[in-house]
Amino acid sequence: MAHLLSVSCFSNISSGSRSYSKPLNQCSISSHASVSLRISSSPLKNLALWANRSQRCGTIYAAAVSVGQEARVQPGSGSDQASDGASVPKKVMVIGGDGYCGWATSLHLSNKNYEVAIVDNLVRRLFDHQLGLDSLTPISSIHNRIRRWKSLTGKDIQLYVGDICDFEFLSEAFKSFEPDAIVHFGEQRSAPYSMIDRSRAVYTQHNNVIGTLNVLFAIKEFGEDCHLVKLGTMGEYGTPNIDIEEGYITITHNGRTDTLPYPKQASSFYHLSKVHDSHNIAFTCKAWGIRATDLNQGVVYGVRTDETAMHEELYNRFDYDGVFGTALNRFCVQAAVGHPLTVYGKGGQTRGYLDIRDTVQCVELAIANPAQRGEFRVFNQFTEQFSVNELAALVTKAGEKLGLEVQTISVPNPRVEAEEHYYNAKHTKLVELGLKPHLLSDSLLDSLLNFTIQYKDRVDSKQIMPSVSWRKIGAKPKTVAA
Amino acid sequence: MAHLLSVSCFSNISSGSRSYSKPLNQCSISSHASVSLRISSSPLKNLALWANRSQRCGTIYAAAVSVGQEARVQPGSGSDQASDGASVPKKVMVIGGDGYCGWATSLHLSNKNYEVAIVDNLVRRLFDHQLGLDSLTPISSIHNRIRRWKSLTGKDIQLYVGDICDFEFLSEAFKSFEPDAIVHFGEQRSAPYSMIDRSRAVYTQHNNVIGTLNVLFAIKEFGEDCHLVKLGTMGEYGTPNIDIEEGYITITHNGRTDTLPYPKQASSFYHLSKVHDSHNIAFTCKAWGIRATDLNQGVVYGVRTDETAMHEELYNRFDYDGVFGTALNRFCVQAAVGHPLTVYGKGGQTRGYLDIRDTVQCVELAIANPAQRGEFRVFNQFTEQFSVNELAALVTKAGEKLGLEVQTISVPNPRVEAEEHYYNAKHTKLVELGLKPHLLSDSLLDSLLNFTIQYKDRVDSKQIMPSVSWRKIGAKPKTVAA
Repeated sequence: MAHLLSVSCFSNISSGSRSYSKPLNQCSISSHASVSLRISSSPLKNLALWANRSQRCGTIYAAAVSVGQEARVQPGSGSDQASDGASVPKKVMVIGGDGYCGWATSLHLSNKNYEVAIVDNLVRRLFDHQLGLDSLTPISSIHNRIRRWKSLTGKDIQLYVGDICDFEFLSEAFKSFEPDAIVHFGEQRSAPYSMIDRSRAVYTQHNNVIGTLNVLFAIKEFGEDCHLVKLGTMGEYGTPNIDIEEGYITITHNGRTDTLPYPKQASSFYHLSKVHDSHNIAFTCKAWGIRATDLNQGVVYGVRTDETAMHEELYNRFDYDGVFGTALNRFCVQAAVGHPLTVYGKGGQTRGYLDIRDTVQCVELAIANPAQRGEFRVFNQFTEQFSVNELAALVTKAGEKLGLEVQTISVPNPRVEAEEHYYNAKHTKLVELGLKPHLLSDSLLDSLLNFTIQYKDRVDSKQIMPSVSWRKIGAKPKTVAA
Repeated sequence: MAHLLSVSCFSNISSGSRSYSKPLNQCSISSHASVSLRISSSPLKNLALWANRSQRCGTIYAAAVSVGQEARVQPGSGSDQASDGASVPKKVMVIGGDGYCGWATSLHLSNKNYEVAIVDNLVRRLFDHQLGLDSLTPISSIHNRIRRWKSLTGKDIQLYVGDICDFEFLSEAFKSFEPDAIVHFGEQRSAPYSMIDRSRAVYTQHNNVIGTLNVLFAIKEFGEDCHLVKLGTMGEYGTPNIDIEEGYITITHNGRTDTLPYPKQASSFYHLSKVHDSHNIAFTCKAWGIRATDLNQGVVYGVRTDETAMHEELYNRFDYDGVFGTALNRFCVQAAVGHPLTVYGKGGQTRGYLDIRDTVQCVELAIANPAQRGEFRVFNQFTEQFSVNELAALVTKAGEKLGLEVQTISVPNPRVEAEEHYYNAKHTKLVELGLKPHLLSDSLLDSLLNFTIQYKDRVDSKQIMPSVSWRKIGAKPKTVAA
């Protein structure tokens, strides 16, 4: 990465500069502070400059800014200065930016002229190796992905490879990049993975909860105006017998009324980790004035976005296995290879779903319209509700149009969940911010099925059936069957 | 510890035996299994025998049972066999049994003829060393405490020194002792401690959440009928503007009704860790059939119980410092040494309180009346509500009776909390089980004040003022001022 520099104490020329009150209060830069300057050789750079000082006074370093930063239309819908003093977000750190949602989001934001840095320890790729799984689509290394994006668009994406549970690493990445917003996808995101064995359950909760705590401390310490956009899950709510609201519910009880956090009933160690995160973040919003948006996302389907479709090296991962594959994507692969669609139990399990093109749109909307200081804002991020049986019927119909013979079987439910239940979850807040949903249509299902057919020779049928049982999880380390 | 042995596969003579279905199903004991037998030399032992087998088939070991186990009146109010197949609890593992509530509970249960094992890593004593704090009362080592108890009563308390975050240690302790119930006090229990710096916040959540996960896995794996009695906190609820129920609230919303977990609004990383535990435990009750009681305890005051008062070597710790000291106990020490009572902010903060003699009574009641398999039962464990101002007034009045001149000052509130608020928390379930509360009385305050006066030369006045700020917590490791 090219390094450019100026010192914000000397001038205010930088549109990308942000003052971090803590270091400025703690020490002043002396006139003999050591300064190094490295000019990028790339013609695509310009000199949007800023200073970034480490915790030790007098040490100064800097980072690169990609082209177009000053000339572009400002991202976001507001003015340069938000009502509560936050500047319009320009620099977005995407934690977990190499994953399914994270990669699509990183490219989308970069394409929309946000300056993007990906922070990822790449452990999702390790999980595949350890469990003997692979994406349906061949995916390039993160380094090749970023290089290809640069060569196609001229846009830089910065990369910080490391673990946010390592606070020293996270601090340095944060201070180096100075994000206006952090999108936090950097969690172990599979419910079955968290239910494989004790060590994976503990890993999931430790990784997710401590990683998020570290992000909160980094924001408090190094950039308290930074907006945290955190990926939660609709699974935090469970399946209550009343309507699900967006984060909060107003309760009248014994003649008194209060608006309280919506009660949570998560049903895996993964979903629980997100519940824990939500409580921790809400507290820091109140105690420290953190600004945060919790995106309680539904089940994501689809694979192509405008950006990932630009080149094979930008293709997104597509999981169909019993651990990381989610309902609709997995059904499409099953239909493509002639495997019966596997409905768990009765199939009445109803959830919110959304197209991955809406995931990236929702995250962009959240960033462009930041939460206020001290606000813990919760959006339910999905566009439609389906039961598993309804999805199976849709895929069956779409498959038949393509000449596929699609069968559906019920397999014993490996999870502990209601298989017939009331479900009505609100999801209006993102629409109010401007979300234009891509509803599940015949044409999307056609293209998704055609996509899976294109890659069907890469399917490992042994990975399709559920291999993890909620009830049989044990204390001993388990290797998922080869 | 003396080791006695028989093999439960050969006979059913042991009143203390429990069958653990997993090992019995997995392997049968061969006739040439290696067996070692060590007879205690103590005349206080009898031969209540049982077998305890490690995960490797054929390895057999055993543990001691204290006198009186067979002849005693059965603890608990039920029959030998509870309605859902659980035997009447006899063996109780007290995790955190060296702490303030844990030590008093361990002695009380031992005195009531429960067989008690203390599991503790003794880290609470390390915290004192690291922060330069000390108990008002001199406390003996855990080894001397247990020896003194034995010499006074003839009762054994087993001791397992180790960390429940180390699953190998916890597994061995569990399999060796075979508890009917686990009382889990083994968490970092100070809100200010969790707010000192990032590393203590992370430690608190990791230690508490992962430790409890390990306990849940140990129960599932090695003794699924074991009843978990978990110490939660009233602080999980925060201060909502509606009545606080015991764990659950029935909500009617848009014409539909459901009973859901009571919404949580915790206000420190410590309190949040207990919220996380509650969600994790509730899930395992549902998914695995764990039986659990969550005791959402109020602020505990007092120092003497019938058992700790028996000998100076059995005395309980008494914390008055700004990190571990809680409101009423700290006020008594302040009155004793002529330090103004320190009310944080306006002093309208209202909480539930209870005498430590009621803590031990509540835990005993919970054990004697176990939760059903799959039940996540929540009791609010306190007896009276007070505001901080009310406590200060009570201590002032009691001090004046003893000729002390007691002043009260308001200090800037180091916490983030409402200082004037509605508070009405239900607490009937333990009373229904038989709790006879020790309400805060003049005589208790007199004796508590006299107790603190007796030890006032041990008071380090520098430790009294709050030293930890909820808002100023930083990422850098902090040493609390000497």
